[in-house]
Amino acid sequence: MSRKGKLFIISGPSGVGKGTIMKALLPIMDGLKLSISTTTRPARRGEVDGREYYFVNDEEFDRLIAEERLLEWARVYSNRYGTPRDFVLDTLENGLDVILEIDIQGALKVKQKMPDGIFIFISPPRMEDLVTRLHGRGKDSELSIQTRYEACRSEMDHMKYYDYVVINDIIEDAVDRVRSIIVAERCRIDKTIEE
Amino acid sequence: MSRKGKLFIISGPSGVGKGTIMKALLPIMDGLKLSISTTTRPARRGEVDGREYYFVNDEEFDRLIAEERLLEWARVYSNRYGTPRDFVLDTLENGLDVILEIDIQGALKVKQKMPDGIFIFISPPRMEDLVTRLHGRGKDSELSIQTRYEACRSEMDHMKYYDYVVINDIIEDAVDRVRSIIVAERCRIDKTIEE
Repeated sequence: MSRKGKLFIISGPSGVGKGTIMKALLPIMDGLKLSISTTTRPARRGEVDGREYYFVNDEEFDRLIAEERLLEWARVYSNRYGTPRDFVLDTLENGLDVILEIDIQGALKVKQKMPDGIFIFISPPRMEDLVTRLHGRGKDSELSIQTRYEACRSEMDHMKYYDYVVINDIIEDAVDRVRSIIVAERCRIDKTIEE
Repeated sequence: MSRKGKLFIISGPSGVGKGTIMKALLPIMDGLKLSISTTTRPARRGEVDGREYYFVNDEEFDRLIAEERLLEWARVYSNRYGTPRDFVLDTLENGLDVILEIDIQGALKVKQKMPDGIFIFISPPRMEDLVTRLHGRGKDSELSIQTRYEACRSEMDHMKYYDYVVINDIIEDAVDRVRSIIVAERCRIDKTIEE
């Protein structure tokens, strides 16, 4: 009767508001463990090692890859991001659900290794809104925004590999939709035996 | 771009609390139309024709069957219950979601005709609780309760044909779970083309 945990993957174009959704979601969900990514990107002001990311240097990241301790990793712009494998597998084995917030490249790689994962695509309501949001947070150069806009257009094509799409129009609604997906998936009847 | 509606089927053992869940659910859900069943069962006190059921006599019910105007029908104890076909199909065609509250026999028949429906099984937390609830509502004889208890046991075997199971432990939680399933299914990416 020991139930294995379920893996939820929150993904979507950069700047779409994944982080904001996660921040609102985690305090209201029981039994859902956040997987913290490892990155070579320098910590931004206010970020804490082991909270937003595990911050490592390039040599350490190379070692994690060599030792196959990353479920996936990807280069985004000039930095690398990876998902620590052991935390995910151990937590699922212990019957707890795990949630990953990763970029689309990473999500597609996780899908190859964890096909039973539940893949949720966070989509901007309109492409224009993504640009406005990137401008608004004031962390990104004009070139970076343009690059991301183009990347986003092609990333939208990947939506078909996902199980759900959540349009991030109003943040409260988007959080409710993601929460609903998790609640619903926990009620889902496992048909792996019948089918 | 015209999206067809989705069909949700709420089902489970008699007396499990389906009606209570529906009553709490409908006012909080947009775009969800309740399918009213047709029955030969006499109206109980407080029931209104066209609200709880369409109440018809045996001859009228025979005619509905003959004219194939029922999506499914079933005999439960000494009465017949059926789902008016046109309302369901027309509403879905108009892009609105439809919800049916029917017994297990009926749900399995609907599944044959509408395999894309989303089938939600409402389960008692424990079998004992079902008996307590049937006693509590004071509408059922001891024999009727015993009959239902036995029926419930065998009905639980049908759970595997459903997509979701919602345990009706605390009513607010059960309503939240059913609502979550509907919200989640509306976010689901249609894979019928890819697969």
